[in-house]
Amino acid sequence: MKALVYHGPGQKTWEEKPKPGIQQPSDAIVRITKTTICGTDLHIMKGDVATVTPGRILGHEGVGIIEETGSAVTTFKKGDHVLISCITSCGKCDYCKKGMYSHCEKGGWILGNLIDGTQAEFVRIPYADNSLYPIPGGSDEEALVMLSDILPTGFECGVLNGKVEPGSTIAIVGAGPVGLAALLTAQFYSPARIFLIDLDDNRLKVAATFGATDTFNSSKENVAERIMTLTGGRGVDTAIEAVGVPATFQLCESIIGPGGVIANIGVHGKSVELHLEELWSKNITITTRLVDTVTTPMLFKTVQSQKLDAKKLITHRFKLPQILEAYDTFANAGKEKALKVILEN
Amino acid sequence: MKALVYHGPGQKTWEEKPKPGIQQPSDAIVRITKTTICGTDLHIMKGDVATVTPGRILGHEGVGIIEETGSAVTTFKKGDHVLISCITSCGKCDYCKKGMYSHCEKGGWILGNLIDGTQAEFVRIPYADNSLYPIPGGSDEEALVMLSDILPTGFECGVLNGKVEPGSTIAIVGAGPVGLAALLTAQFYSPARIFLIDLDDNRLKVAATFGATDTFNSSKENVAERIMTLTGGRGVDTAIEAVGVPATFQLCESIIGPGGVIANIGVHGKSVELHLEELWSKNITITTRLVDTVTTPMLFKTVQSQKLDAKKLITHRFKLPQILEAYDTFANAGKEKALKVILEN
Amino acid sequence: MKALVYHGPGQKTWEEKPKPGIQQPSDAIVRITKTTICGTDLHIMKGDVATVTPGRILGHEGVGIIEETGSAVTTFKKGDHVLISCITSCGKCDYCKKGMYSHCEKGGWILGNLIDGTQAEFVRIPYADNSLYPIPGGSDEEALVMLSDILPTGFECGVLNGKVEPGSTIAIVGAGPVGLAALLTAQFYSPARIFLIDLDDNRLKVAATFGATDTFNSSKENVAERIMTLTGGRGVDTAIEAVGVPATFQLCESIIGPGGVIANIGVHGKSVELHLEELWSKNITITTRLVDTVTTPMLFKTVQSQKLDAKKLITHRFKLPQILEAYDTFANAGKEKALKVILEN
Amino acid sequence: MKALVYHGPGQKTWEEKPKPGIQQPSDAIVRITKTTICGTDLHIMKGDVATVTPGRILGHEGVGIIEETGSAVTTFKKGDHVLISCITSCGKCDYCKKGMYSHCEKGGWILGNLIDGTQAEFVRIPYADNSLYPIPGGSDEEALVMLSDILPTGFECGVLNGKVEPGSTIAIVGAGPVGLAALLTAQFYSPARIFLIDLDDNRLKVAATFGATDTFNSSKENVAERIMTLTGGRGVDTAIEAVGVPATFQLCESIIGPGGVIANIGVHGKSVELHLEELWSKNITITTRLVDTVTTPMLFKTVQSQKLDAKKLITHRFKLPQILEAYDTFANAGKEKALKVILEN
Repeated sequence: MKALVYHGPGQKTWEEKPKPGIQQPSDAIVRITKTTICGTDLHIMKGDVATVTPGRILGHEGVGIIEETGSAVTTFKKGDHVLISCITSCGKCDYCKKGMYSHCEKGGWILGNLIDGTQAEFVRIPYADNSLYPIPGGSDEEALVMLSDILPTGFECGVLNGKVEPGSTIAIVGAGPVGLAALLTAQFYSPARIFLIDLDDNRLKVAATFGATDTFNSSKENVAERIMTLTGGRGVDTAIEAVGVPATFQLCESIIGPGGVIANIGVHGKSVELHLEELWSKNITITTRLVDTVTTPMLFKTVQSQKLDAKKLITHRFKLPQILEAYDTFANAGKEKALKVILEN
Repeated sequence: MKALVYHGPGQKTWEEKPKPGIQQPSDAIVRITKTTICGTDLHIMKGDVATVTPGRILGHEGVGIIEETGSAVTTFKKGDHVLISCITSCGKCDYCKKGMYSHCEKGGWILGNLIDGTQAEFVRIPYADNSLYPIPGGSDEEALVMLSDILPTGFECGVLNGKVEPGSTIAIVGAGPVGLAALLTAQFYSPARIFLIDLDDNRLKVAATFGATDTFNSSKENVAERIMTLTGGRGVDTAIEAVGVPATFQLCESIIGPGGVIANIGVHGKSVELHLEELWSKNITITTRLVDTVTTPMLFKTVQSQKLDAKKLITHRFKLPQILEAYDTFANAGKEKALKVILEN
Repeated sequence: MKALVYHGPGQKTWEEKPKPGIQQPSDAIVRITKTTICGTDLHIMKGDVATVTPGRILGHEGVGIIEETGSAVTTFKKGDHVLISCITSCGKCDYCKKGMYSHCEKGGWILGNLIDGTQAEFVRIPYADNSLYPIPGGSDEEALVMLSDILPTGFECGVLNGKVEPGSTIAIVGAGPVGLAALLTAQFYSPARIFLIDLDDNRLKVAATFGATDTFNSSKENVAERIMTLTGGRGVDTAIEAVGVPATFQLCESIIGPGGVIANIGVHGKSVELHLEELWSKNITITTRLVDTVTTPMLFKTVQSQKLDAKKLITHRFKLPQILEAYDTFANAGKEKALKVILEN
Repeated sequence: MKALVYHGPGQKTWEEKPKPGIQQPSDAIVRITKTTICGTDLHIMKGDVATVTPGRILGHEGVGIIEETGSAVTTFKKGDHVLISCITSCGKCDYCKKGMYSHCEKGGWILGNLIDGTQAEFVRIPYADNSLYPIPGGSDEEALVMLSDILPTGFECGVLNGKVEPGSTIAIVGAGPVGLAALLTAQFYSPARIFLIDLDDNRLKVAATFGATDTFNSSKENVAERIMTLTGGRGVDTAIEAVGVPATFQLCESIIGPGGVIANIGVHGKSVELHLEELWSKNITITTRLVDTVTTPMLFKTVQSQKLDAKKLITHRFKLPQILEAYDTFANAGKEKALKVILEN
C-alpha cells in the first residue's frame, strides 16, 4: 500500500509500505476513506516530537471501512464504517476506567507516533472496540473526520475544562483550527460573549462568522486592556489558550476574572511564568489536558442532530496521493487561508 | 479600650484606642473574649501588605460576645456568643451569592487590614448577620478560634479545591499551622496516604501525630524522587502547597500525577515557573483561592461532633495584654515550637 | 392604591387598598410597572392554597421602580428600575447561604401568599437587596417579567435538575407556560432531541416553533410506547414533569432511560405511585424543587445577550385595571390560546 | 467439580458439575478460594428472581486464582490472585464507558443469574480484564470477599448517591449487611450524626459498634417523630433505604430534610407511594442504583490502608462443601446473629 512516511526532520515521502495485518486479537485493520493533517504533524516534521522515529507513517485522524478484525473484536466486523479516534484506549487500565484515555497504559496518542498512522491506505487500530466508533448510514464522512481529534480537543480541553456556561463571558486565544473547534463547541453552552484573539485578520473574520461576538488582533491593540474594559474590570469567566506559547498563556493570566478558569489546550515547548503573586488570592483554576476523546459519542450526537456544523472547519480537499501538496497548503495556512484539509482515498 | 496597633514596618504597640461604635445598620460591636495571631499578621509587620496603613488595629480571628447591634441586624442580639469570620461578607453582591465571600464587593478580608481588627478589647463587624456565627452553649471557645481563618483556609483552599477523596494519595507541602489545618481536614475524606513535607523536624513530628502517614524533610533528601518512587512513578492525586515560595510550588509540579490537582494555599510574593512543556498533556488542575469561609457552618458541625479536634493546633496561651510577648513567641515558631497561640481577654 | 384582592375561593376584586410602607430597614417599596398572572394564582382562586387568606393582594411577579427604601438597603435607591423575584431571600440563613432561597427561613414564596403581592400599584419587598435585581437601561421590561418566576422555574427545576447536556434526548411533559420555559432554557445546553407531550394541539404547535423536535398529543396516541420506539428502547436521558398530576409523573417513569433523571416541576396535589419494583435497578434520579431563583443573574445575561427570547411566552397584554378580564383570559388558556399575559400599570 | 445448583424454588443441591472452560477470548477461568452468600441468593431460592432458571450454579461474589485465560486477556495470567466483581463489564459499550457497568450491554449482573456463578470450585468470568481485580500479595482474602458486592453496593448506591459529607446528618434504614456496609463506608466522609433504624436489637447493637451515633428500633418507637425532634424539625441530609419494602421507603420520605437525598439501595418487589404533594417543593433528590462496582479500585485502597475494616461484616465461616449449612445459617440471620458468611474452598 501507499503511505506518507516520516524520514527525519523536514523529510517525508509518499511511498510503498507493507499493508498492515492483525497483531493482537483486539486489533482491526481499517481501509482509510478520508483523513486529514494535524498541526501536530507539522511539529513532527520539524523534528520537535522525539517519540516519532524515521520510518513512521504519520496521521492520527480519519474515517474508513473495516477490512479485518482480530478474534476478540466484538463491536465491529468487516465492512463496517468507522471513525478512528486519535487516542487509542485499551478500556481496561485504571486511566481508561476513569475516562482518561489520553493516559491509557497501553494506548493514548500512539497512532502516527509510536505506531503507524492513518495517512495511508490502511491502518492497524489496536483495541479496536474501544478506539473506533460506528458511523451510522447516511452520515457525512467529512464532518466526522473532524471528530477524530480537533473537535474533542477543543471541546474537552477548552470548553469542558473551562466550564463554559449559559450567560458566561469567555475568551479564546488563538483562532487556528483548535481554537475554532473550541469556539464552535463552546456554543453548546450558550455563553453570552465570546472574545477571539489572534494575529491573523482572516482567521478572526472566520471566527466572527463562527459565532465570536468580539474579535481582537493582538498585534494591533492591547488586548488585555480592551477585555478588562469590556468586562467592567472583572475579567472573563473562562480563558481558553489554544496556541501554546508563553505570551498567549500570560494573556490568559491577565484577563481571567476571580473564580474563573484558564483552560490550556496549546502544546507548549517551554515553561511559562505563572503570576501567583497576583493569582494566589483570585480563586482561579488552571487546567491542562491531552484530549481523551471521551466525549466522542456526545459529539457524534451533536453532529447528527445538526447542533454542530463540523464541516465548517474544512477549507481544502485533496486526493490522498496529493498529500505532499496538502502538507504544503496546510503548512502555509495563513497565506492559503487554510483551516483543515480533507484527503480522500 | 486597649488594642494592638500597627505603626509601620516593625512597629506595633499595645495602646489605648477609642472603643468602636455602630456605623451602619448592619454592624455589630463584639467584645473579644479570645483571639489569636496569624502568619499574615507577621507579613503585615514586615511591611509586606501595602493595604495596611499605620494606625490600624490588627487581627482577623476571634470569638466574643455581642455588645451592640445595628438596626438591620436580625440574627444576633446583645449578649450572644459569636465566632468572627476572617472574611466579611455582605451577602448581597454577585460574589457573595456565589459563595465567593473572599471577593465580596464590600467585604472580603478587611478586618485588621482595611478596617480595625480583632486584637483589641472590642471590634466592629460590618454585615454582622453574614460575618458572624452563633456559638452554641457549652462549646469550647479555643477550638472555635481555629475556625475564624486557619481551618477553613486549609480545608477550602487545600482539601476541597484539591478534591481529596477516599483512598487517594496526597502530599501537603508545608507543616505550619495552615498545612496542619489541611492535614486535619483532609482526613474528613479518608485518603489512603498523606505525605507531609517541611524543613523543620519538630513540625514533621507533629504532623505524624496529626495523621500524616509519611513525612519528609526536604533539606535532607530529594523529596520529589522519594515520592515518585513511593507512588510507583505515578505521582500524587493531590498536592497542597502551604508555604508560598517558588520552590515549594515547583515541588508540587514535580510530584503531581496525571489527572491530579495542585491546590495552592500559600501567599506568594513572586511568580513561579510553570512547566507547561511537561504539564500541558498531564490533565492536571491548579487552583488558587483566598479562603471564602463558606464552609464555616460545616466545620462547626465537625467540631461539635468531634470529627475534628481543632484545639490540637494550639501550643501557647497568653492574656490579651501580653500580646507583644505572644507576637515574639509566634514569630519564633521554630525555636518556640509554636503553632497557634490563644490570647484571652 | 388599587390592587387585586383575594376574598376567598372564587372571589376577587380590583379595589382600593392602603399603599404599603417600609416596615423593616431591609424593605423597599416598588411601584409596579408590569406584572403578570401565574398558574399558581388560579390555584389560589380555587381555594387550593391554604396559606393564602382572604384580604390578601395576589401576585408574585413583576418589574417596577423603587419608590422608597429602608435604612439598611444599600444596593438600590429611589428611582431604580428593578425586577422582582417571586422568591424572597434574606441572604443570611443557612438555606440562603446554600443558594436554596426557596426555603429561606424568613422568606421563600411569601409574595401574594403570606404577604401582599405584586398585582397592585405598589408592593413592599422585604430583604430588597437580595430579592430584587437591577434592570440595566434599555432593557425590555416585558421580557424581564418572565424572569420573576416562570423562566427560573423551568430552568432550575427542569433543566438544571434534569442535567440536560449536549446531544442528550429529553422529554418535557406539559406544554403550558412552565413547560415551554423549560423548553426554551433547555436549549442553552444543545440537546439533540426534545420531545414535548401535551393534550392541546395548539400548545404543541407552539412548542414546535419554540424548538421541540417531536411533539405528541397524549390523548391521541400511546406516548410511552412511541418514545421508547424512537429511542431504540433506551428511553430518554431527562424527563421533565411540568403538569403536576399522577398520570404525567408516571409517564416520566415509563420513558426514563437507565442513568436518567426525572425532574419534577409540577405542583402536585396528591401522591403518585413510584414503581420502584422496576426503577430500583435503573440508576435513575428523581428531583423536586421549588424554584430558588438563584439563576436569575445568569438568566438575565442570556436575555441581554439574546440567547433567550423570553417575550415569546407572552400572548396577551392588558392595562392593570383590566386585571379581572386578564384573569378570565388566562383561566381559559386553551380557548384563548393564552400563555402569559402582561399587565401594564 | 462440585457446585451449589438451583433446582427451582426451595431446591438446591451441592453436586457434581462439569468444570467450566474458556468460551470467548476475553474469558478467564477462576478457581474459587473464598466465596459467600448474598441476600439476593435467598431471593432466588424463593423463586423471586425470574431470570434464574433451574440448573444454574448460584453465587456472584468471591476471590480466587486464575486457572486459565482466553487469548484476548492481557491483564491476568494463570496463577494470579483475583477479586471477582459481582458485576460483569465488557468495558466497551456506552454504559461501561460511562462507568455504569450495571447496565453493560453484555454483562451487568449475570453471574449466578444468567450464567453459572461462584458458589463452585471453578467459575468462568467473561470480560475478565474488566471484571476481575488483581489482589496484591499479603492481602486478607476474607476482607476482599466483601468487595465483590456488599461494600460497593452500600457505598455506591447509598453513600455516593446520598452525597454524604463532613458534618452532615444521615439516616440508614436497615441494619442488614448492606445497611452496615453503607454505615462503614459513610464514615469515609465524616458525617456528624448517623442514625440507624432496624427491627432487630442485635443488629442495632452491632451498628452502634460500627459507628452509628443513634439507633432506633422501629417496632418500638415512632422513629420519624424521634428523628424530626432530634434534627430540630429539619430532617436528615441523607436517608439511605437498605431494606426494599414500602414502609422503609416511606420512612425515608418522612424524615428527609429540604435539599436532602433519599438514596435507595433496597431491592423492591412492589411500588411505593411517593408523597409528591409534600415533596414537590422540598428540593429533594431520590436515587436508585444497581451497584456498578466502579469504585472497587477506590475501595481496595481504603481496605489496604486500613481506613475500612471490611472483615467486621463476617460472622460465620464454613468450608465450601458445607454450603447447605451455611445457607441455613444465613437464612436464619436473626436467630444466628449472622451478617456475612465466608465459604472456603
